[in-house]
Amino acid sequence: HDMNGNLMDFLDEPFPDVSTYEDFHTIDWLREKSRDTDRHRKITTKSKESYWELIKSLLDAWSGWVVMLLIGMLTGTLAGVIDLAVDWMTDLKEGVCLSAFYYSHEQCCWTSNETTFDDRDKCPQWQKWAELMTGHSEGAGAYVLNYFLYVLWALLFSFLAVSLVRVFAPYACGSGIPEIKTILSGFIIRGYLGKWTLLIKTVTLVLAVSSGLSLGKEGPLVHVACCCGNLFCSLFSKYSKNEGKRREVLSAAAAAGVSVAFGAPIGGVLFSLEEVSYYFPLKTLWRSFFAALVAAFTLRAINPFGNSRLVLFYVEYHTPWYMAELVPFILLGVFGGLWGTLFIRGNIAWCRRRKTTLLGKYPVLEVIVITGITAVLAFPNPYTRRSTSELISELFNDCGALESSQLCDYVNNPNMSRPVDDIPDRPAGPGVYSALWQLALALIFKIVITIFTFGMKIPSGLFIPSMAVGAIAGRIVGIAVEQMAYHHHDWIIFKNWCRPGADCVTPGLYAMVGAAACLGGVTRMTVSLVVIMFELTGGLEYIVPLMAAAVTSKWVADAFGKEGIYESHIQLNGYPYLDVRDEFTHRTLATDVMRPRRSEPPLAVLTQDSTTVEDVETLIKDTDYNGFPVVVSRESERLIGFVQRRELTVAIKTARQKQDGVVSSSVVYFTEDNPQVAEACDPQPLKLRRILNLSPFTVTDHTPMETVVDIFRKLGLRQCLVTRSG
Amino acid sequence: HDMNGNLMDFLDEPFPDVSTYEDFHTIDWLREKSRDTDRHRKITTKSKESYWELIKSLLDAWSGWVVMLLIGMLTGTLAGVIDLAVDWMTDLKEGVCLSAFYYSHEQCCWTSNETTFDDRDKCPQWQKWAELMTGHSEGAGAYVLNYFLYVLWALLFSFLAVSLVRVFAPYACGSGIPEIKTILSGFIIRGYLGKWTLLIKTVTLVLAVSSGLSLGKEGPLVHVACCCGNLFCSLFSKYSKNEGKRREVLSAAAAAGVSVAFGAPIGGVLFSLEEVSYYFPLKTLWRSFFAALVAAFTLRAINPFGNSRLVLFYVEYHTPWYMAELVPFILLGVFGGLWGTLFIRGNIAWCRRRKTTLLGKYPVLEVIVITGITAVLAFPNPYTRRSTSELISELFNDCGALESSQLCDYVNNPNMSRPVDDIPDRPAGPGVYSALWQLALALIFKIVITIFTFGMKIPSGLFIPSMAVGAIAGRIVGIAVEQMAYHHHDWIIFKNWCRPGADCVTPGLYAMVGAAACLGGVTRMTVSLVVIMFELTGGLEYIVPLMAAAVTSKWVADAFGKEGIYESHIQLNGYPYLDVRDEFTHRTLATDVMRPRRSEPPLAVLTQDSTTVEDVETLIKDTDYNGFPVVVSRESERLIGFVQRRELTVAIKTARQKQDGVVSSSVVYFTEDNPQVAEACDPQPLKLRRILNLSPFTVTDHTPMETVVDIFRKLGLRQCLVTRSG
Repeated sequence: HDMNGNLMDFLDEPFPDVSTYEDFHTIDWLREKSRDTDRHRKITTKSKESYWELIKSLLDAWSGWVVMLLIGMLTGTLAGVIDLAVDWMTDLKEGVCLSAFYYSHEQCCWTSNETTFDDRDKCPQWQKWAELMTGHSEGAGAYVLNYFLYVLWALLFSFLAVSLVRVFAPYACGSGIPEIKTILSGFIIRGYLGKWTLLIKTVTLVLAVSSGLSLGKEGPLVHVACCCGNLFCSLFSKYSKNEGKRREVLSAAAAAGVSVAFGAPIGGVLFSLEEVSYYFPLKTLWRSFFAALVAAFTLRAINPFGNSRLVLFYVEYHTPWYMAELVPFILLGVFGGLWGTLFIRGNIAWCRRRKTTLLGKYPVLEVIVITGITAVLAFPNPYTRRSTSELISELFNDCGALESSQLCDYVNNPNMSRPVDDIPDRPAGPGVYSALWQLALALIFKIVITIFTFGMKIPSGLFIPSMAVGAIAGRIVGIAVEQMAYHHHDWIIFKNWCRPGADCVTPGLYAMVGAAACLGGVTRMTVSLVVIMFELTGGLEYIVPLMAAAVTSKWVADAFGKEGIYESHIQLNGYPYLDVRDEFTHRTLATDVMRPRRSEPPLAVLTQDSTTVEDVETLIKDTDYNGFPVVVSRESERLIGFVQRRELTVAIKTARQKQDGVVSSSVVYFTEDNPQVAEACDPQPLKLRRILNLSPFTVTDHTPMETVVDIFRKLGLRQCLVTRSG
Repeated sequence: HDMNGNLMDFLDEPFPDVSTYEDFHTIDWLREKSRDTDRHRKITTKSKESYWELIKSLLDAWSGWVVMLLIGMLTGTLAGVIDLAVDWMTDLKEGVCLSAFYYSHEQCCWTSNETTFDDRDKCPQWQKWAELMTGHSEGAGAYVLNYFLYVLWALLFSFLAVSLVRVFAPYACGSGIPEIKTILSGFIIRGYLGKWTLLIKTVTLVLAVSSGLSLGKEGPLVHVACCCGNLFCSLFSKYSKNEGKRREVLSAAAAAGVSVAFGAPIGGVLFSLEEVSYYFPLKTLWRSFFAALVAAFTLRAINPFGNSRLVLFYVEYHTPWYMAELVPFILLGVFGGLWGTLFIRGNIAWCRRRKTTLLGKYPVLEVIVITGITAVLAFPNPYTRRSTSELISELFNDCGALESSQLCDYVNNPNMSRPVDDIPDRPAGPGVYSALWQLALALIFKIVITIFTFGMKIPSGLFIPSMAVGAIAGRIVGIAVEQMAYHHHDWIIFKNWCRPGADCVTPGLYAMVGAAACLGGVTRMTVSLVVIMFELTGGLEYIVPLMAAAVTSKWVADAFGKEGIYESHIQLNGYPYLDVRDEFTHRTLATDVMRPRRSEPPLAVLTQDSTTVEDVETLIKDTDYNGFPVVVSRESERLIGFVQRRELTVAIKTARQKQDGVVSSSVVYFTEDNPQVAEACDPQPLKLRRILNLSPFTVTDHTPMETVVDIFRKLGLRQCLVTRSG
């Protein structure tokens, strides 16, 4: 080995053909970054050589944008397809369209000739099952038959969903956000974002949502988007071969997922930044924004809701809010915080029980039973029978002139023909009172069933159920305040802002505030939550109520426990996740925390030029550390570098096969020069400098642990060596 | 010193009464963070002792929110006051209101009896100077008199502005954003954010903008907001005593500044995140959002524009855009990129000339001359005579029914009485053609004068002039496309989307896209730019044109040079700023970069127990390093810790004064135990372990420089020691 050869050894990448990280291991961000810089440097140097290389380098520079475009388009398309399929299958539980079986209720009635709005529900093309099978649409018999078929369809859908997940892609269950957070923080879970997971998750998500279970599609859509991201990463070696760069793409994909889930591109980017991502450079911010926009516009082009809106919950309110209303808004915030705490504690307790008892052995049975209970209890109540997102949409809506909902059955408003903007407060009719009872029952039902549903072995998000709980509670509070203001507008608190006949309380706004509070209580989102809600309403007007509720909810929930539902699930599943928000309260030094502890055997080290191959092999066999420090000698344990267990194993195996003269008694050396060979008959030494990491990360034994944790978080280290006087 | 004493020494903070950093020095983020953790820990421990301490700890936890509230309120108020004052003083150059001299033109005519819109410009209460002084409102004499007084007022305003800055607060000049970026990255510039700067900057900003110079108030508003932030920091020891925490507040204040400058709270937060801030934890994101909202709502409560809008440029367009229009939008992007390059190069060259030649010696004269030239050239052209923000507002606006602007002088539209939504494309009248010429002249004038204006010794922002350049160019392109579509709607490109009589081109949208492109070219903002523009229009509809223009502009400008105007000014002024976006292209190792280099004298070190006080004093005198590594001994230079020059000086000085027996030949020791004193007559040794940093940051000599730079950026280090084998 001449000097030049040494240099080459050092510059070359060690074993480029070996997959770098094992499954369920953590990546080394610093190393990934420096590998990418090397790659980039190589391409820049080459690009000056020929036009072909220049074009290749340009393509490489553009590949990031291409990936974002593809992710946005596929995510938007999948979201549109899921929306359409869910619509159709949810309606299939009730009946079928005679003109074309693949039409949902709404599409069916659009195409029918009855174009006036009032007749919409009576369009003849749409037939409920009982009507189709027996010819009778009324009566107890028809009701029972419809009930029976509703439950049957629900059971069929959920059975299909859980079976598909069990058989084809076990990773497709759950919301996926805890795992994605872990993966983005630098953990490897092979197959979690694979093609197979993508396909099965998309299909089973449709089935699970259609089955009427208390779950949403928003969380799983983030998972689906990340699967798309991973899929397109494999097209470009820049991303497929670098785990760090791959995670940048995944962060952007998560933004695209939320963007299509809520129709809120800016909210999606902030969600990815605030909630999901770990390492988020500015470049990623810009690209995430691009991906989120492409996804949103693709979804809009598909137009699944038929209203050329991006969002299902699009609302427009026409009355301002008043200062005094902050009191009920803050109360809703408290409710949201309490719901968050109750849900997290209950759900975690149930999931722990599932892990430890027999329950976990029968996931299919569990899903079937929960679906059965849900369907049986949901059918009689009109507010739980329909899909949850329709329910939320109705609760958010202000009672306009065209509303035929029970919730808008106000006494003074029989003909419903006044312009939308000018509906004053009015006494509630019997419809509103019966709706209130049904909503209260629906609230209790949703609260209980959601705790048991989230975490089952099917795709399940909790955004929509949480929002539903909040929206129901908010609407109830809103109607209560409205009626109080109507009947007691001489009270001092109403006097100033609520003149008789004026339109001063919007129950729909209360529903929205409640939904934000409950979602905030469960997930502890703040900025992204408010921005998502802002994008739904599209006006700065209502940001203050939303903020007040979100902040209160977060504070109340934080008082009972710092962790959101995702962090709790990460902990429950034992993923290695270093939360950015955790604060260190104890004063410890690196020396108190480092391994080996005082009672343990001394540190397993290699020396730079006196260990034999056999020693190394014994060390590898006896210990399970991921790597070993290399020191000057046993006597003077000064640190030279760090060598990975994996690379050491491969290097020795390769050397034993290919390099002559390497036997068990060969000396392994990490220095640049050959060690002095004592006798001529000694076996050929083995040089391993190329696998030695010459710049391992070190801290002194007196470094406070909060600094060490900070370094780990910010630099994404895999390990850190503790030294004293070198 | 017993063992306990040693422990106390170690735990106590060294010299809490000494101000920690000198002026024009860099802070140590890691140390600030660990100091804050200590403080927090102390308060948490104490809070369990008594109710009073508990209340104090709660107050401490809340102080962050209180600071944000105060910043938001003061920033919003100042922005409102500045807007009102600028309005009044800009109009003062033309005339005065007879009913009350402190009314601006618009306010004056509101209060007058002529309430119809057409008569607005003729309201009798408002009198131009010539009319007031001579009684004649028409004729060459009156024109010349108005012209003369316009120039005179402009000169007066700018003279006052530059004199105030010169005499009272030299830091009040410029936009302040480059310096704020530097400060936020961890640099100390005392007085830059002081009370005096705040006061003078606010006053002179009004004068400078009113003088009609080609500058805006947006950048300086960020500086003003940061001054507010600094002001309120001093109320709470949590922020005033910790430079790291202070910078969190300043980041949020910057967000509030942009929020009031554009009426875009979310855009403000993203601006702070993307453009200004260096260290931006999630907590800051949430608080920035709060501060930005409070500021926006305070401004709205003041309602300076009299339209209960947050923004001056509020626009609503009624026609969608078409795919083919992307071509002119992208061309505008190219123009924006070229303008950015031209502006940055020209402005930097001029500023460098100012620094190196005699020009810099006469800042007052320079301002007077530029103001004179601006005023003389601006008055004859109606598009440059009015304030730049009014110009932008007019250019953005779609021609509605109520527009009396020359730009809306279309032939088929003589009575101007059709509903706003339904104005088809139409041939341009003579007014539009003459407006085009005037706009073209205004464009050239603005381009040239802005290059010379930015960087003078008065408060000057470049957002507004940049946007004006873009808006003029965009409007010209928009009118051209519109007329082409009208006259040639049988052309293949127009055929598909532009039927005759339909409303297919919105010149106002082109102006907006052009403004975004030019602003993007100069500042290289991306996400925040698009979000700010999105908040101006309030619809996702136009985000694609804006993004297309912003991306094109950034790419074109980046092709000519990576740096935006702020980075260029940072470099010009030689501030120590480590750009997050810079990429390392050379392959160097820490050993190649570290000091001392091979040719220099060896490293100045202290030994742990063999240096005398005299040696230390000589070392301090002979070198100007900020600190010295402490090693085991001269023979075995293994690193023990690091000691700051400043603390060493103070410690020795204190010891010499207060501690008996410390003389020049006393041994300084950093170990825990006394060194063995050879003879009894030796002088008392001096223990300095408490000022020794036992956890200095080290890297090995083989660490690649890109890793080192990454560590410096992410951890905010002040120094880093390079070791080999310890």
